[in-house]
Amino acid sequence: MSPAERSCYGGAVRPYDLIKAKRDGKPLPAEGVRDFIRGYTAGSVRDYQMAAMCMAIYFRGLSPDELAAWTGAMLESGEVVDLSDIPGAKVDKHSTGGVGDKVSLCLAPMVAACGVKVPMISGRGLGHTGGTLDKLESIPGFRVDLSVSEYRRMVREVGACLIGQTATLAPADKKLYALRDVTATVESIPLIASSIMSKKLAEGIDALVLDVKVGAGAFMKTREEARVLARAMIDIGAKMGRKVIALLTDMNQPLGHTVGNALEVAEAIGVLLGSAAADLTEVTMALGAEMLVVGGKAKDENEGRAMLKRSIESGAALSKMREIIRWQGGDPIVLEDVSRLPHARNTSMLPSPSAGFVSGIDAEAIGVAAMLLGAGRETADGPIDPAVGVVLPCKVGDAVAAGESLAEIHYNKEERLEEVKSRLLQAFRFSAAAPTAKRLVLERLA
Amino acid sequence: MSPAERSCYGGAVRPYDLIKAKRDGKPLPAEGVRDFIRGYTAGSVRDYQMAAMCMAIYFRGLSPDELAAWTGAMLESGEVVDLSDIPGAKVDKHSTGGVGDKVSLCLAPMVAACGVKVPMISGRGLGHTGGTLDKLESIPGFRVDLSVSEYRRMVREVGACLIGQTATLAPADKKLYALRDVTATVESIPLIASSIMSKKLAEGIDALVLDVKVGAGAFMKTREEARVLARAMIDIGAKMGRKVIALLTDMNQPLGHTVGNALEVAEAIGVLLGSAAADLTEVTMALGAEMLVVGGKAKDENEGRAMLKRSIESGAALSKMREIIRWQGGDPIVLEDVSRLPHARNTSMLPSPSAGFVSGIDAEAIGVAAMLLGAGRETADGPIDPAVGVVLPCKVGDAVAAGESLAEIHYNKEERLEEVKSRLLQAFRFSAAAPTAKRLVLERLA
Repeated sequence: MSPAERSCYGGAVRPYDLIKAKRDGKPLPAEGVRDFIRGYTAGSVRDYQMAAMCMAIYFRGLSPDELAAWTGAMLESGEVVDLSDIPGAKVDKHSTGGVGDKVSLCLAPMVAACGVKVPMISGRGLGHTGGTLDKLESIPGFRVDLSVSEYRRMVREVGACLIGQTATLAPADKKLYALRDVTATVESIPLIASSIMSKKLAEGIDALVLDVKVGAGAFMKTREEARVLARAMIDIGAKMGRKVIALLTDMNQPLGHTVGNALEVAEAIGVLLGSAAADLTEVTMALGAEMLVVGGKAKDENEGRAMLKRSIESGAALSKMREIIRWQGGDPIVLEDVSRLPHARNTSMLPSPSAGFVSGIDAEAIGVAAMLLGAGRETADGPIDPAVGVVLPCKVGDAVAAGESLAEIHYNKEERLEEVKSRLLQAFRFSAAAPTAKRLVLERLA
Repeated sequence: MSPAERSCYGGAVRPYDLIKAKRDGKPLPAEGVRDFIRGYTAGSVRDYQMAAMCMAIYFRGLSPDELAAWTGAMLESGEVVDLSDIPGAKVDKHSTGGVGDKVSLCLAPMVAACGVKVPMISGRGLGHTGGTLDKLESIPGFRVDLSVSEYRRMVREVGACLIGQTATLAPADKKLYALRDVTATVESIPLIASSIMSKKLAEGIDALVLDVKVGAGAFMKTREEARVLARAMIDIGAKMGRKVIALLTDMNQPLGHTVGNALEVAEAIGVLLGSAAADLTEVTMALGAEMLVVGGKAKDENEGRAMLKRSIESGAALSKMREIIRWQGGDPIVLEDVSRLPHARNTSMLPSPSAGFVSGIDAEAIGVAAMLLGAGRETADGPIDPAVGVVLPCKVGDAVAAGESLAEIHYNKEERLEEVKSRLLQAFRFSAAAPTAKRLVLERLA
């Protein structure tokens, strides 16, 4: 421990003083926040000091000014892509992570087909939630590791690009996220908000539409929490001169009918073909319409929805997806023949133990079951199996007969099948009467 | 970050789960606490995980069971000295740290002269508080780095030993303290209590008398905080089968008339010679009497005080000090001639700006001034000057004339003299009427 790590009496603001100030609920000066993040990126602020700071932030939060300074410093830790020379609005969508959430896969080509550019940098799955990158990689040949110059070129020429976070964008966030992940400081709203926003702002976007998932299968369990997170990101956007719109959407059951990488790609292709689960289509339309409005292509939500519908009916969205896949090295044959996606060797059906109405499907439990099959990772560097997963024929509100299929399990390894089945079964709740239908888009914040 | 650092779903209790449980205010199992401390000592629990845990403990505290498990694991991280083959009670004293607190220097020989063994392991000073080891080392030749076997031999044959923490006793505490010091997690009552108790229990003592300082110059600013700390240590002692008694004593002005290493040794020698400041003598007698009672040599406090008084009058305490100094390599001539202690080249007098009564002397400000002269350390590995310091002729309640000396500054370097003077001056408060006298020993807990 060097003397510079601690300042007892007087001198400049040092890491120790900033941690102590946050611990004691005192305001952090913007300059101090910047120095702290810069020092962390450079290594002079040590991991243990950042861990203590993050835990103090978990308990004390960050004020709007502190949050803007924190996010700005994370953003400035790396390259900030400038897409201003590319004509038209650049709008991205970000979801806080759900189970069965394959919206990005169909949304990006639909919105791009309507003329708003979609520079989209996505993440990988961890735990019970899947990741867009993992899903994309189940398309044979598809590359997500494009360089920033390839990314710029695709945004300009194709109007959309679906890649992973590069090492040059917000490196402080990458380092910090890995630390938070092992120090139990992930679940802090300001830290979540600044992590998302620093990466998104580094993409070079003009506006961002957020899908904040709420419910048992999501990070935010309550609407109030979700609202706080949405508000934090909207505020950061405002301070950075970027329009941010948030939809709070229900995640009390998986989205659509599939959980698992190739299975979800196939389902997303279904949206582009005009035949998909109502909830998946609705969330895609709601988010897409917001993107078209904020991107200046539609005058209101209704017009946006009509444009998106036409992009499907005309085949423009499918054709945009073909272009994206081709540019990113994938084989677009999957768009005509989903059986060309990886598929599992075996399937097994889970029969319903009783007759009645499905009144609940615990999304987190379904996500964990899919992870146990190999569709997700237990640890950040674990392998995944693109082929495995779960197909859920029923949605909440559907009537089922005893013995009717609740789930079709696609698996390659026998070992954990019984555990998966028992977890899946426990995910279902039944009722004698039909449950009242819940709204999918709960709230809009801007 | 290895997978073992985090456990998402199931498996044994891992560091991540323990940090999260503490963060969320859930109880930690004793075995988990032990594994966490063991892992930290061994290096499998990383500094950043411990830093996050300490910050979570800062906010959530530790339950009595958790605190006992934490302390026990720290204790077991190293050697636990067994003094049970040495006849008689072994009783130590610990102070939470004040300004001008030289009690250990006179208390140890007095109590040992009365027949209770005093195995005393002390620390160094940091910031505005001094350390017993630094004071002792101002005695020419005095060694504080004795081995455990030399320590045992002195406890047996001399009845007292004044050494520093060895590398083998509670190494987890040493590592943890250095981490807390740079992560703003020092000021946590359970962490303070477990740090003190793990070191003290490793000494092989039967009982411990605590001097918990309360006031502006102390770690614990309020009586309520001090009581909570005392109670935590008493509870740990009870769970470990050791009697712990705590006196809460006032630290709203420095103890005695001197602050600075050699100056304090000279003042402590004054106590052994029967002539010293009333407050210093009183705190020494109060703590010493408790040690004699708990050590089975006195039936009550009054008898204890009488025994201590006799140890001074008979010269037994002074003679015991001579023995200690000689055994630890020091030159006992200082007991006859304090001018043989290091002394500063220059002195400067600080005149009182006005006439009146001294109504307050900010102990922390005096401590910082002495530190700036070189008597204390700004950082843990900084040098100190044994000769420099401050003599304070007045105590709170004394009347002073304008121009009368408030402080005599003993210094070797001119550079910061003016800053020191201005800090000293600001430490004094004056009133027109005599302030009401405050009690020195505020409370006794056991």
